[in-house]
Amino acid sequence: MAVRAAVAGASGYAGGEVLRLLLGHPQVEIGALTGQSNAGQRFGTLQPHLLPLADRVLEPTTAEVLAGHDVVFLALPHGQSAAVAEQLGEDVLVVDMGADFRLRDAADWEAFYGSPHAGTWPYGLPELPGARAALEGAKRIAVPGCYPTAVSLALFPAYGGGLVEPEAVIVAATGTSGAGKALKPHLLGSEVMGSMSPYGVGGGHRHTPEMIQNLGTVAGEKVTVSFTPTLAPMARGILATCSAKAKPGTTAEDVRAAYDKAYADEPFVHLLPEGQWPATASVYGSNAVQVQVAHDEAAGRVIAISAIDNLTKGTAGGAVQSMNIALGLPEDTGLSTIGVAP
Amino acid sequence: MAVRAAVAGASGYAGGEVLRLLLGHPQVEIGALTGQSNAGQRFGTLQPHLLPLADRVLEPTTAEVLAGHDVVFLALPHGQSAAVAEQLGEDVLVVDMGADFRLRDAADWEAFYGSPHAGTWPYGLPELPGARAALEGAKRIAVPGCYPTAVSLALFPAYGGGLVEPEAVIVAATGTSGAGKALKPHLLGSEVMGSMSPYGVGGGHRHTPEMIQNLGTVAGEKVTVSFTPTLAPMARGILATCSAKAKPGTTAEDVRAAYDKAYADEPFVHLLPEGQWPATASVYGSNAVQVQVAHDEAAGRVIAISAIDNLTKGTAGGAVQSMNIALGLPEDTGLSTIGVAP
Amino acid sequence: MAVRAAVAGASGYAGGEVLRLLLGHPQVEIGALTGQSNAGQRFGTLQPHLLPLADRVLEPTTAEVLAGHDVVFLALPHGQSAAVAEQLGEDVLVVDMGADFRLRDAADWEAFYGSPHAGTWPYGLPELPGARAALEGAKRIAVPGCYPTAVSLALFPAYGGGLVEPEAVIVAATGTSGAGKALKPHLLGSEVMGSMSPYGVGGGHRHTPEMIQNLGTVAGEKVTVSFTPTLAPMARGILATCSAKAKPGTTAEDVRAAYDKAYADEPFVHLLPEGQWPATASVYGSNAVQVQVAHDEAAGRVIAISAIDNLTKGTAGGAVQSMNIALGLPEDTGLSTIGVAP
Amino acid sequence: MAVRAAVAGASGYAGGEVLRLLLGHPQVEIGALTGQSNAGQRFGTLQPHLLPLADRVLEPTTAEVLAGHDVVFLALPHGQSAAVAEQLGEDVLVVDMGADFRLRDAADWEAFYGSPHAGTWPYGLPELPGARAALEGAKRIAVPGCYPTAVSLALFPAYGGGLVEPEAVIVAATGTSGAGKALKPHLLGSEVMGSMSPYGVGGGHRHTPEMIQNLGTVAGEKVTVSFTPTLAPMARGILATCSAKAKPGTTAEDVRAAYDKAYADEPFVHLLPEGQWPATASVYGSNAVQVQVAHDEAAGRVIAISAIDNLTKGTAGGAVQSMNIALGLPEDTGLSTIGVAP
Repeated sequence: MAVRAAVAGASGYAGGEVLRLLLGHPQVEIGALTGQSNAGQRFGTLQPHLLPLADRVLEPTTAEVLAGHDVVFLALPHGQSAAVAEQLGEDVLVVDMGADFRLRDAADWEAFYGSPHAGTWPYGLPELPGARAALEGAKRIAVPGCYPTAVSLALFPAYGGGLVEPEAVIVAATGTSGAGKALKPHLLGSEVMGSMSPYGVGGGHRHTPEMIQNLGTVAGEKVTVSFTPTLAPMARGILATCSAKAKPGTTAEDVRAAYDKAYADEPFVHLLPEGQWPATASVYGSNAVQVQVAHDEAAGRVIAISAIDNLTKGTAGGAVQSMNIALGLPEDTGLSTIGVAP
Repeated sequence: MAVRAAVAGASGYAGGEVLRLLLGHPQVEIGALTGQSNAGQRFGTLQPHLLPLADRVLEPTTAEVLAGHDVVFLALPHGQSAAVAEQLGEDVLVVDMGADFRLRDAADWEAFYGSPHAGTWPYGLPELPGARAALEGAKRIAVPGCYPTAVSLALFPAYGGGLVEPEAVIVAATGTSGAGKALKPHLLGSEVMGSMSPYGVGGGHRHTPEMIQNLGTVAGEKVTVSFTPTLAPMARGILATCSAKAKPGTTAEDVRAAYDKAYADEPFVHLLPEGQWPATASVYGSNAVQVQVAHDEAAGRVIAISAIDNLTKGTAGGAVQSMNIALGLPEDTGLSTIGVAP
Repeated sequence: MAVRAAVAGASGYAGGEVLRLLLGHPQVEIGALTGQSNAGQRFGTLQPHLLPLADRVLEPTTAEVLAGHDVVFLALPHGQSAAVAEQLGEDVLVVDMGADFRLRDAADWEAFYGSPHAGTWPYGLPELPGARAALEGAKRIAVPGCYPTAVSLALFPAYGGGLVEPEAVIVAATGTSGAGKALKPHLLGSEVMGSMSPYGVGGGHRHTPEMIQNLGTVAGEKVTVSFTPTLAPMARGILATCSAKAKPGTTAEDVRAAYDKAYADEPFVHLLPEGQWPATASVYGSNAVQVQVAHDEAAGRVIAISAIDNLTKGTAGGAVQSMNIALGLPEDTGLSTIGVAP
Repeated sequence: MAVRAAVAGASGYAGGEVLRLLLGHPQVEIGALTGQSNAGQRFGTLQPHLLPLADRVLEPTTAEVLAGHDVVFLALPHGQSAAVAEQLGEDVLVVDMGADFRLRDAADWEAFYGSPHAGTWPYGLPELPGARAALEGAKRIAVPGCYPTAVSLALFPAYGGGLVEPEAVIVAATGTSGAGKALKPHLLGSEVMGSMSPYGVGGGHRHTPEMIQNLGTVAGEKVTVSFTPTLAPMARGILATCSAKAKPGTTAEDVRAAYDKAYADEPFVHLLPEGQWPATASVYGSNAVQVQVAHDEAAGRVIAISAIDNLTKGTAGGAVQSMNIALGLPEDTGLSTIGVAP
């Protein structure tokens, strides 16, 4: 089988990462690469690390250019995916790495994004209960946000097992690529090297309702999330430190058992042996997730920590994983659990 | 007034930092520099950034060498300070940058350090209620740990104002200098650059009881602390993200007012204007503390975040600040609120 | 004496650094802070590390605002200094941290900058032979470029001593702050962290003629310079690796003697003991220069390496040092040779 | 074909990298993983990024453990490879990633390593003229040093074309992984982050004679090399800035033509289009080499710059590439030219 794939938004970080993975995918043939402001430029100038595509030229993001592909990956600013998707046939698999179709609740969307809700597509986090089945044969996929990927995988076994109270507290550190290639002063190398800083504190980050949606679905009750994202001096990686109050009677053994069960058969999520903790370096460039969990009896909380590569499992790797499921390919085709370290 | 100061443990990071500050202190004359394994070495080889001391030689840490100084700073591994302090006269000001005399509860000490408790000295965090008075004229000072400094300054106004429940959740990122010059594989540059990783998860970090002590004293009730430290790819800095459930009726205005009041007259703690958040780069090399606080109504929590330089305000700057108080000097002598950025 | 100083271009990196130093200068009182696009903004938002100036407001760069100061520091894009300087009285000391008045040869200026030459001011590198005298009482000072500072101090003793051939080869690594706060994709943190890359290769960098001017003056003959600058994953610092073929008969002892002599009495240039090599971390935030030199007999070359902080000795520290000389103050007033490390 | 491979020294950086590549090699089955001091430990603790091998256990480096493999990779301290290789049969392919068998001149070896010369094996830099033929069917391979790989590929077309004088000047920046997992103070994260520093200046670096050997062979005359290595604040990557005086009559077109010709058919070496320069980030984790060259007419020099990943093309990728040739496999099997960026 040869799957012909186009990437809209190919000059950004998400677009570049999905191309990095697709270049190594044995069933995929790379078709159109599109962009907006830099259409017409040599691709080797825009993404110099993708040597096999260096002599390609970026085309404009139009229906004509995107036509004739089996899969189209969208790496667009939020609010633009619906218009592009509509122009593509219903038999084309559209994988949206943006936010537009992640939320089920239109009010949540409008509150956090300030625009009309475009709709809801099957959610590309296969490890969540029930998610895999919804992706099989799907023609539209909403790839989760990078933070919700890390946080949901850290916490859902605790909520699925009824082990913790429905008030989660999350502090996550992300590499700067999570903010994209945007030309903003606080993203300059001079500013980020040697500095840790928070942003979107107090509930304002747009990934918050997505976490609430995921954890609440698994918990079967409304969950609140206190989420503080921080910017770390590294290009890639998310370390999500998540905790919730243990329900009365929850033991360390209960916790361990719930996580063991949740991840025993998952190809990409690796529950570390007790005593070893995740590090973002270990999953650099890979689709792996490292998870560890502890029960702090003195504080009465379960603490679960996950490490992912925000661009791989958190964006483009998750997209390819879901594409594989949708197309009936082995889920790990073209994806690796091996990090590039040190 | 000329204060003659010695530093025991001068070749480490805490020792080097206190010397960096003392070199700029107009009342201090630097006396003996001592160490153990590297006694006899040229100081310029050990601390090449301290050019004015380059031709000095490290002496052994003995009572003879340390005798005849007005102030002795101890930057020693825990458990060694008591023996050294005993050999110094009672009229010598001893400022211990180690852990030995920070905790009031001997059982806490023994539980976390596994050795007999050496005692309790006046606690060198002047911003805490009542702390300044105890430092005036003191001859023994226990400098707080770096994390407890950052966390206590982030949270004590909330606890002092009775605004939050006694269960704090803290996730802090530290630069690698917090671990000292120890030759451990996980501290190698190849391992830390590009990586975030947690350690001491689940209540095991030795700074936990010190936070509980500080916050509990201010709250007037027992406080639990869920503390997760993480190692960040930077040499210096702590960003402490702290939160606790808001007590019923607490408003955003209450929170702001409590912090405004707590820090209105503090020379080193800077409550940022609303909308601006701390960054460790802004306090690099300075004794300043940046604090910001928010009330997340949806999650029902107060989130307070502080940034410090772990080696300056978190260790050596706090030590000099307390020395100034003990000696009756202006508290900010030789200390700066200006960071080295970018 | 109270010297009242204004800074034009106060929101950039050079402007911020000169303010950081002036805040610690006992004779200076800080007057107007000016900028262009961000005039009207709170200074604490623009330069959050300069806490004592946080509540100041950036004013527009006009003759009216800059009037009434004893010293005006210019941190402007090249080509703009002459117009501003003309509007200031001849009795005002104008210290230009830009390039406009560094070169003596109008043709060089036009070849490298493509605009008419504005003129030549006394050159603010006091360590160069004859430079100090020209700065005493000066009312106009051209602060050297950061690379020419590092390179000239590494090599001039070899040229002054007639020890090397007039063909210098220089490869220098700079921190990203050397490129200023410009919003360019290749300066984003995601791009620079983990990456070394050259730029301006093959003679195109605008600092090349300035190096040729300095070394040629000392050598007393025309010198060629092959200069390759590289961008390093750090915010500050320049490491300049410079070499030239040894003239016949030059010995290692000759080389050492020439450097010893050149720097014996210099307050900021520190010739390291044999066997120790410069590191940019050692001069972080300080006005110090670390220099070391070796004679590679097998290759027949003298290799001289210097480390500076590009923003301090390479820009703002050099500016303050020259201001001190011009005003008749002790040359090291408000300046330090102590780096912030680790 | 199934090739069974063992790795001696599997817990270090070179050993880890060769395993990372072999895990993705379709013809290789990974056999024994051996080490010395940490034999008996779980591999997932030692190399947490290699998830598929996490449950393996490190065995001791003995002839018994290494027996029965088709290929044995040696990642051992210098001086140890000969003894291990002797115990392996002559029909086993031994790929030595250490220095022992790289040099042809015993006197060079003894001068730089201070021990008897073990011998000379076919040299694993296939891009060098004649090297590929010597590797076909070989049973012993000496993998080049990381610096000589970068430098030889930057400069050999210039020497092969007779375009430059036989005096090369090289300044190279390396990531810290080039120094291995050694527990040395200057390799601590706190020391390397934010710092550039040289080492082995003046001809002392052990890779110097290997560069001289390679360039001299291509040039057909004795070449001198002035080599200054510098340590950069990044985990991986080498940027080698190399230059030599242009021979009289050499033109920019000659230079371009020589490089075009040398690399037209090379699968891993990518001569960049004019105006684009190498960056180590672009080859992160890949076996690609980016090369660019310029002719500086004013300085009379040819400047050639290369970027490699020191652990991949500079060590383990070069090893796998040479193994492929020796075994008659397509040269790029299991190797990629796609970097992990940003």
